[in-house]
Amino acid sequence: VNTALDCPEPIAKPIASRHRPDRGRLVVSCRDGPGIIAAVSRFLADRGANIVHSDQHTTDPDGGDFFLRMAFDLPGLADRLAGLANEFSAIEAAFGMKVRWALEQETRRIAIFVSGEDHCLLELLWHVRSGDLRAYVALVISNHAEMAAVVRPFGIPFHYVPVLPGQKAAAETMQQSLLEDAAVELIVLARYMQVLSPAFIARWPNRVINIHHSFLPAFVGARPFFQAQSRGVKLIGATAHYTNEDLDAGPIIEQDVIRVDHRHDVPALRRMSRAIERAVLTRAVGWHLEDRVFVTGNKTVVFS
Amino acid sequence: VNTALDCPEPIAKPIASRHRPDRGRLVVSCRDGPGIIAAVSRFLADRGANIVHSDQHTTDPDGGDFFLRMAFDLPGLADRLAGLANEFSAIEAAFGMKVRWALEQETRRIAIFVSGEDHCLLELLWHVRSGDLRAYVALVISNHAEMAAVVRPFGIPFHYVPVLPGQKAAAETMQQSLLEDAAVELIVLARYMQVLSPAFIARWPNRVINIHHSFLPAFVGARPFFQAQSRGVKLIGATAHYTNEDLDAGPIIEQDVIRVDHRHDVPALRRMSRAIERAVLTRAVGWHLEDRVFVTGNKTVVFS
Amino acid sequence: VNTALDCPEPIAKPIASRHRPDRGRLVVSCRDGPGIIAAVSRFLADRGANIVHSDQHTTDPDGGDFFLRMAFDLPGLADRLAGLANEFSAIEAAFGMKVRWALEQETRRIAIFVSGEDHCLLELLWHVRSGDLRAYVALVISNHAEMAAVVRPFGIPFHYVPVLPGQKAAAETMQQSLLEDAAVELIVLARYMQVLSPAFIARWPNRVINIHHSFLPAFVGARPFFQAQSRGVKLIGATAHYTNEDLDAGPIIEQDVIRVDHRHDVPALRRMSRAIERAVLTRAVGWHLEDRVFVTGNKTVVFS
Amino acid sequence: VNTALDCPEPIAKPIASRHRPDRGRLVVSCRDGPGIIAAVSRFLADRGANIVHSDQHTTDPDGGDFFLRMAFDLPGLADRLAGLANEFSAIEAAFGMKVRWALEQETRRIAIFVSGEDHCLLELLWHVRSGDLRAYVALVISNHAEMAAVVRPFGIPFHYVPVLPGQKAAAETMQQSLLEDAAVELIVLARYMQVLSPAFIARWPNRVINIHHSFLPAFVGARPFFQAQSRGVKLIGATAHYTNEDLDAGPIIEQDVIRVDHRHDVPALRRMSRAIERAVLTRAVGWHLEDRVFVTGNKTVVFS
Repeated sequence: VNTALDCPEPIAKPIASRHRPDRGRLVVSCRDGPGIIAAVSRFLADRGANIVHSDQHTTDPDGGDFFLRMAFDLPGLADRLAGLANEFSAIEAAFGMKVRWALEQETRRIAIFVSGEDHCLLELLWHVRSGDLRAYVALVISNHAEMAAVVRPFGIPFHYVPVLPGQKAAAETMQQSLLEDAAVELIVLARYMQVLSPAFIARWPNRVINIHHSFLPAFVGARPFFQAQSRGVKLIGATAHYTNEDLDAGPIIEQDVIRVDHRHDVPALRRMSRAIERAVLTRAVGWHLEDRVFVTGNKTVVFS
Repeated sequence: VNTALDCPEPIAKPIASRHRPDRGRLVVSCRDGPGIIAAVSRFLADRGANIVHSDQHTTDPDGGDFFLRMAFDLPGLADRLAGLANEFSAIEAAFGMKVRWALEQETRRIAIFVSGEDHCLLELLWHVRSGDLRAYVALVISNHAEMAAVVRPFGIPFHYVPVLPGQKAAAETMQQSLLEDAAVELIVLARYMQVLSPAFIARWPNRVINIHHSFLPAFVGARPFFQAQSRGVKLIGATAHYTNEDLDAGPIIEQDVIRVDHRHDVPALRRMSRAIERAVLTRAVGWHLEDRVFVTGNKTVVFS
Repeated sequence: VNTALDCPEPIAKPIASRHRPDRGRLVVSCRDGPGIIAAVSRFLADRGANIVHSDQHTTDPDGGDFFLRMAFDLPGLADRLAGLANEFSAIEAAFGMKVRWALEQETRRIAIFVSGEDHCLLELLWHVRSGDLRAYVALVISNHAEMAAVVRPFGIPFHYVPVLPGQKAAAETMQQSLLEDAAVELIVLARYMQVLSPAFIARWPNRVINIHHSFLPAFVGARPFFQAQSRGVKLIGATAHYTNEDLDAGPIIEQDVIRVDHRHDVPALRRMSRAIERAVLTRAVGWHLEDRVFVTGNKTVVFS
Repeated sequence: VNTALDCPEPIAKPIASRHRPDRGRLVVSCRDGPGIIAAVSRFLADRGANIVHSDQHTTDPDGGDFFLRMAFDLPGLADRLAGLANEFSAIEAAFGMKVRWALEQETRRIAIFVSGEDHCLLELLWHVRSGDLRAYVALVISNHAEMAAVVRPFGIPFHYVPVLPGQKAAAETMQQSLLEDAAVELIVLARYMQVLSPAFIARWPNRVINIHHSFLPAFVGARPFFQAQSRGVKLIGATAHYTNEDLDAGPIIEQDVIRVDHRHDVPALRRMSRAIERAVLTRAVGWHLEDRVFVTGNKTVVFS
């Protein structure tokens, strides 16, 4: 967990009972067909694991995409995880599975990108500090130098990477280098207002989560609050999605809306929107970190 | 109130205390400027009226559009309403107002258009019968003959007006004639799947309310459930709006959404959508009937 | 499906794609322990069934209550269901399971009890007629004779059973007799304002669903709207629950709330409450009919 | 505005257009009767003020409690406010009004009390820093020393006031002294887990806002999450209310709920509840600071 420089003592300690060192999960994707659940559950049962939650989905029982997430308890799991993964490889091969084994208490390394608005950034940092979000924030990158002051109390490395006109490539080279040095698994665009290049995005397939300040696909592109106000909608929304080469068109992970009315001008919409942007982004990031999100085509399956 | 042929005894009687014969409302639109509220409230106070609710909105304090809706109690109002309106004409002229006086217990005549799905129609009929919606349904028009059976138990005149290819003009002539005979003030398109011609719409400015089965402006046009399912949205919506010449683009009165997930196919979306379509349409119609909706440009002000 | 006397032609036909004659479900309750899912899924896989949805829950991985609901596709299921149940009996015995096999298209027989307010009754009848609720309404029982007119257009047998002071036992004897003749599996109290005796309830364990017009456990007992208005709450609610001997204290199946404010008097609260009462009750009944509700202690597990 | 020691540069600047130096409000409470709105609006119109929003409510048109909040624009308001208040005193006396005049841009001094959980505290501090909450946090008081680290980056005075068994009176004396020195108008109990004495509360009538972690009146008293989990409710809530001598029974300002299910144990409920606690408390405090909350009996009128 991040230790804030200004916070020598732990604040808002994680709630104790969530620490279950013997709880793990097995996450599987493959082509659907008969016998998958039977094979996986038999494997776990034979090794003394007790399945505590299980979610599955098939896009089509007849050869569609199949997704499975099983949470289980197994004494001494931390020491046995590598062995389990190894033993499972026969089943994995037989069904052509993509597999991930993980401990529930696993903490994954993430990077946060931010521009001039700090509400999503702070929401993420708080949830990490409280233990609600199982992440280690390895670094924050911003094209706004003043964000350093927001990040500093949390004791997290901050990198100011300006994006000057005509020099995006140089900035992205620096960003990419920082990300590799920090060995992160996920990039969160927490109101980062620069468009990342297709080449950059291509290196991080389904590993960049963006928050868009509208209910996509309504109001794609620039100035969604202005668009919303002009159209006179009665709800405004926010959308967290994986970023792909086609701006604002990647797989949607989570959305929410808030009621507005004729009294709300554009600044009011912006203010109200913040509440849902940070909630939606935090839920999406949490689900990703807990292996609850699967991408199929341009859509997601979320076991929330 | 409508008396259903099959229901000789009143069912679900209106809740008694809602009947306040001495309660009325004054609804005003004009260009904003100083002194409007003072003039109106002084007028009412001088006549012994007590303002019980008041809503107002200005699009711009400096010469924008101003809207006011005042509900008031005045003993013997039913007999005095015409006189009040007459006395008020000096203020009306001074401020260039558009004015409407009404009794709270006023019941307005409406027509309902429907095609093959009855959920919005039934929701409206039911709310009318319970007294929650202060309307008299003068007639139901459908291009589906089988809707007669839905309407019959409510004792409301039903008219089957087929819309054959190339004969829309003839159908609209018949519809227009029925509407005029019935002296309705409002047309409700309760999942009426025929596009009305601009000429027809032009006769009913801001007096045709449609329910669209998406969260506009997302998924305009045909097959919104298919569009929503393809895009992988996490919420689907419904929109009640005034119909104008530009399909799906009229002033929005009310919207709502419902959460969906990867398990919902198009038929499931359609089924879930019904719940919000009928709720959204009923709210919009109720607000219109109670003079709570004002149109300004392509948007509405709703004093809900 | 019910055929309304006044509706010779089918109205709002069920959406075609929901009819999947080869889809069924297996529902299991037992004490938790290792190997259950493996045994069940192996059984289904060996017979060529493809699991399309699966939900499970355990109240405690170490010997708690375990609940499982698996939906599966199996060609020719209708003819094979009895055979499957028979073959499964060995697993059933080994784990001490309580088991139910059903076809997805199964329609279960229910009775509806109602007093003087028809909104929940009508909501249920509509959803049955549209096919959204897979039930056959075998009869409606009311202590208000005028409800006959509401039920008649749906072509459902209506029984007026008055409950006179001091004669509740006689009324319940008649009700019980009607229920047995109709061979119903579930009783829905759709705003039935008479308290059923413990003896009556004891015959229908977890098979009577009631709608209470408050967010339980707030405002138990009489006049919840008055209580809510007096306390000045900002939300009012509705609760669908199984009825047991302790009034308003049975296992909760579903709840929802709606926002209210200082402008709403008791009649307004009652009017607004109707919308959530009927939605909450309909969801609860639908989940029960689809075997999605399990009772454990005084609580429910709902695989919604 | 508070300047955080660690944040020399302003972060998340308030949205510019919200600063309207010529916008003010007039807030009135009195016994209802005819002519109030006429008198007030005439007074404002005669001085060139343009009413931009107006809310009113009467508990009973016939002599009940009347509440009015008018927002208006008047050039040079800051310099004229004292004069207006003085001129208005005749109307004030005539109707027996309680009156408050304020500039929209007014910033009011508040104190925050907190114990061991920082989520509500941080939410408030963040909204103050962003300018969304128009308050000056004069001090934070906690019985947990480690909260100093949370407050320090915001540059706000922090006071550790332990509450030892049998020494509550001494602690309250110290708290009272700190509050008086800081000249605050409002105390916010942001998850402060000590019960304040009736004597303390009596000094701050309707000026102490507490957040309770349940949907009151359900689950009053201790351990509401445990109570909620035991009862098996499907929604959990949070309630912001003015604190009076009767614990958990003061006038409710705002409430909200979040959906839960059988998978959520007590720690999960606690975690999920945080999101609504902080949102509900922030809304309530914001409304209080903007003079949108009126107390009548044990209830509130909120012009939100």
